[in-house]
This record gives sequence, structure tokens and C-alpha cells, in this order.
Amino acid sequence: MSKDNLIEKMLPAIENQLKIVVARSCENDDNTRGLHDMMTYQMGWSGEGAGLAARGKRIRPLLVLLTTAASGGEWEIALPAAAAVELIHNFSLIHDDIEDQSFTRRGRPTLWTTHGIAQAINTGDAMFTLAHLSMLDLEAFLPSSIVLDTIGILQRTCLELTKGQYLDISYENRVDLSLADYWPMIDGKTAALLGACTKIGSKIAGAESQTSEHYFTFGISLGKAFQVQDDILGIWGDVAKTGKSSASDLITGKKSLPVLYGLERGDAFAKRWLQGPISAAKVYEIATQLEVEGGKSFAQEAAFKLTNQALNALEAAKPRGEAGGMLLSLSEQLLGRQS
Amino acid sequence: MSKDNLIEKMLPAIENQLKIVVARSCENDDNTRGLHDMMTYQMGWSGEGAGLAARGKRIRPLLVLLTTAASGGEWEIALPAAAAVELIHNFSLIHDDIEDQSFTRRGRPTLWTTHGIAQAINTGDAMFTLAHLSMLDLEAFLPSSIVLDTIGILQRTCLELTKGQYLDISYENRVDLSLADYWPMIDGKTAALLGACTKIGSKIAGAESQTSEHYFTFGISLGKAFQVQDDILGIWGDVAKTGKSSASDLITGKKSLPVLYGLERGDAFAKRWLQGPISAAKVYEIATQLEVEGGKSFAQEAAFKLTNQALNALEAAKPRGEAGGMLLSLSEQLLGRQS
Repeated sequence: MSKDNLIEKMLPAIENQLKIVVARSCENDDNTRGLHDMMTYQMGWSGEGAGLAARGKRIRPLLVLLTTAASGGEWEIALPAAAAVELIHNFSLIHDDIEDQSFTRRGRPTLWTTHGIAQAINTGDAMFTLAHLSMLDLEAFLPSSIVLDTIGILQRTCLELTKGQYLDISYENRVDLSLADYWPMIDGKTAALLGACTKIGSKIAGAESQTSEHYFTFGISLGKAFQVQDDILGIWGDVAKTGKSSASDLITGKKSLPVLYGLERGDAFAKRWLQGPISAAKVYEIATQLEVEGGKSFAQEAAFKLTNQALNALEAAKPRGEAGGMLLSLSEQLLGRQS
Repeated sequence: MSKDNLIEKMLPAIENQLKIVVARSCENDDNTRGLHDMMTYQMGWSGEGAGLAARGKRIRPLLVLLTTAASGGEWEIALPAAAAVELIHNFSLIHDDIEDQSFTRRGRPTLWTTHGIAQAINTGDAMFTLAHLSMLDLEAFLPSSIVLDTIGILQRTCLELTKGQYLDISYENRVDLSLADYWPMIDGKTAALLGACTKIGSKIAGAESQTSEHYFTFGISLGKAFQVQDDILGIWGDVAKTGKSSASDLITGKKSLPVLYGLERGDAFAKRWLQGPISAAKVYEIATQLEVEGGKSFAQEAAFKLTNQALNALEAAKPRGEAGGMLLSLSEQLLGRQS
């Protein structure tokens, strides 16, 4: 299939661009090689367990490049933006892992556990800065006004990210949550950045504003659908299939869509949830209770609707050529419709 | 004196601009009012002890506005950049306070002690983002190319900031430090942002690149001179005069210029330093030892040279009018030459 050809060209170009940008953390300055090394660890290039699995799937930069190509632009021009969104994603992972006190990420120890909280916070800040600097590289091939436009999109997205993270942290100790509290958090934490990827990708190609909006809706809906899917798998998923740790989201207390549905319903599941932490021994029983109360089918329906929304928006954007087909298959892969 | 007139016009305009930008953290979104409230606490506008002392002196935004005016521009146009540098400064304070485990800042509890590490990290990230967003407001009055130019200056500065902070943290457990390790840390942590203020201020006024470079040297040297001065006061200063806590930098183990001088010398002071923490009871004796070995006069000479460098660069930039005089008096005030 031609699919692999284009993505297989893009993936090494993304890694290469990321390495160029990350190298700026110790450019002309051997003093800060240690800062650079923490970044290469986070990016999955160095340290124990380095490699493909440690890198993640680079979904966000691929979305940027594919959207640029599918909008009729040259994807190589968008590489600085592709690097930027992946660095934003990784900066947020570094800080989220500290904030959530997570010990592992992609099967490896998180940065704060290996280098301490102080260095990890600062490395995240430096990576955030490199992401913004990377956007300025777009100037080589694009007019200033378009560069500023895309910078604005990315920075407003970062504000949404931090707002979503604020909500997530603040939900931790709240017992009064309901379904309405879900979307503002997810919009910021997951959907906004995917929406930025497709919007920026199309802007770089010089797409009309109507087309850009369709791509934006596609990215946002894809992000939401993916998150809801992830929420379902987090409770009812097969550990072997998802590659997630065996700790169910019910044990970690994650405020996922099915859980908030159950809390809003206020029946047996909600009463049990409010009693405190759920042990591994009780997970199956409580997951079944939530399923009986309709939590699973509610989330499945939401995921189905969002997926359709995403695919309709993609169709409306009239993506072109090989990249257009690739956007569709990447979405299907992300949403688990493909094995 | 006319001095007070211009600065007294600028200060409320700076606060006003800052409030406009910070308000974006909960614009159209009452869910994130708590995020906004953490920012207003950090900025000294809300919470116990709010007020002038809690705000800091707003030196950085004043430097931006005064440089714009002294370069022949309208300072009001530079307000978004002035807000940006102050937000960058405060974002770095929020994160530094976590990294250094500092409990108080400007006489009040630090944000992480009142709201937890997770929210404080994220609030810093959000403030960092707002700073970058603020720079985009420059577009209202300036051509895209100049806006991009100033954004680039600020973002490269942020990279310097995080590199300096990396060094500072990494020095904590090192026993092999010498004088050469001082400047790379200070250049990033203190000097770079002041240099960015004056460079950006002059660029906004459309100054020629030679003039901008003079202003940049002025800002950088001012920052270094200020830091060295601060280092001297941190060991030999009068607590009542400096307003600093009574904890001498010798007790906290700060890698200041006099200390690194003493370590490089390798005499009695260095031997004592390497033995471990210094108690309050021993501070006077050890400070005197360092003074005898030449640590104080060495630092004083450095501060004197840097101050001259700053003032020479300012002269070379040919600052105009009332604002020009103000830059001089602000520098003198900052360097403690004025009572």
C-alpha cells in the first residue's frame, strides 16, 4: 500500500527535525549537555529502553504534515510546526507526570523519578521554549503574517492545555462532579492540541479559512473520540490489547466519561465510588455495575458520534491525494477501527 | 522632578496591561477562575499581603517602556511586551520557588506552599503561555516582521533562562565549582531577561541595529552588575537595608560570586565550605574569612566594572529625552548608588 510510503518518509524527517531543535538546548554551550540529555531521554532517543516504543507514535506531527499535504502544500515546509507540536506534547507529559506523581511513562521511569522534580520542571520549561522557537523556523519558507497566525493558534492551544490541566488537578478532591465537568477538561487536555495540528497544517498550505475550520473540527473531534475510546478501554479494555498497565482507571480514580456518567446517575456505582478507593479485587464487580447502569454504552455512543463528526469534517475539508487517504486511515487506526 | 511623572504614568499602565492579559486565563470560562486567582496572588493583586511590596518593582517592564521612549518610540505601543517580560519573570519565580523549595517570596508564602506543587507548576506554565500570547498583541501597531523579531528575542531569552536554571540546580551538589562556572549561570538566570527588555524596547521603537546592540549590552551588564551587588549584600549586607531575610547566602549555600572566588582560591574559606552547611552562629566568622581572602573586594571590583560597562553602553545608545534620564536614574537606583 502507498500509505506506508508517505508516512515512512515523514517519520524519519520528523525525528530529524526534532533532533535539530532539541540540540539547541546545548548549542555552543557544552555546560548544558545534561539538559540536552534529559530531553533526549524524554524523546525516547537515549537511556535505557530507548527506541520506538519509548518515543510514542508521533501522531501529532504526522497530523500536521499530512494535513499540509492533503491541503495541497509541501509537507516538508511544515516540519518546524510538526516538531513544535510534538515538543509541546512532551513538555506537557513531563509536567503532567510530576503533577500526577506518575512513575512510569511508555514503559520507562518518568523524568522526575530519574532526575528529580527540580530538573524535570525546568527541562519541561526548556522544551516548551524550544517548541515556540521551532515555530519561528517556519519563517524560512512562509510570509511573516502566516507564521504569526500559526504561532497564535499554537499559543492559544497551550492556554487551553493548561486550563484543562488545571481542571484535571482540581477535580482530584471533588465529590460533586457530573458529566458537564468532563468536556471542558478533555477539550483542553487532549482535543485542543490535535485541533491545533490540523488547523496549523492546513494554514501552512494556505488553505481557505472554511477548509481550515473543517480540519480543525476534524482534529478536535478526533481528539475527543480518541479520549472517550481510551476511557472505555481504561475500564473494560483488555490489558494485553491496550498495552496499558493492569491498573484499571477505576483503581487510579480517573475522572473518565463512564465514571462521570455513573456519578451523575447517582445509583449504586456512584454510592460505591464516593466511599473511597477501589481495590483490585473489587474492580471487576464495580466495572460490571457501571456497565449495568449504562456507563459503557453511554460512552460508546459518545465515541461513535464523535468519530462520525470527525470523519464528516474530514470529508468536508476535501483532503487531496495520498495524504488525504492517509488522514483517514490514521484516524481509523487511532480510533481502533483497524486491527 | 520630572522623573516621577513618566514612571508614574507607566506603572499603572503596566498593571492595567498585566491584568488584561492575566484575565485571559478565565475568559469566557468561569471554570478556570481558580487558575486566574492563583495568578493574581502571584502578581501581588490578591490574597493576604497583596499590594505594592508583594508585586515587586516591575523593573523589567519599566526597562522595556523606558527604552522604547528613549529610542524615540511611543511607550504605549510597547505595553504588550512590557507585560510579557513581567509574566516571564513571574512564571520563572513560581517554578524556581518549587525547584528551590522556597517557602516565602516578597514576604508572602510561595504559590506551591499554598496551592500545592501540581497547581503551581501548571499555573507557571499557563503564565508562560500568557506571556507569549501577550507578545502577539504587538501586532495591533507594528508590522509582522518586527513582531516576529521581538518574539524571537524573547524566546531565545527564555531558552537562556532555562539553561541558567539548569546550571543553578546542577551546581547544588557539586564540590568542584570555580569562578568560570559563575557567569554562564548568571547570564541566563538574571542578565538575559534584562538584556531582552532593553533590546525589545528599542526594536519596538524601530531603533537601528547598532543602537539596539548598545541597549542590549546596557541591559545585560545592568543585570550582571545587579546580581553581583546582590551577591555582596547576601553575605555582607545589612538585613534592615536590603529587606532580605536574615538568612545569609552562606547559610543557604548559594553559589554566589564571592563564594566561587573563595572556592577557586582554595584557602581556609574553601576548606570550611567543603566541610558542609554553615550555621548561623558561624556566619560572621566565615564571612570575615572570605573578606580577608579578597572575596568581597573581588566582587566589588566586578560590580564596579559591570556598572561602568552598563553606563557606557547606555551613553553609546544615546537615549533621548525624559526617558533617557530615567533609564540612568533607574539603573543607579537598582545598583544602590542612590539612597
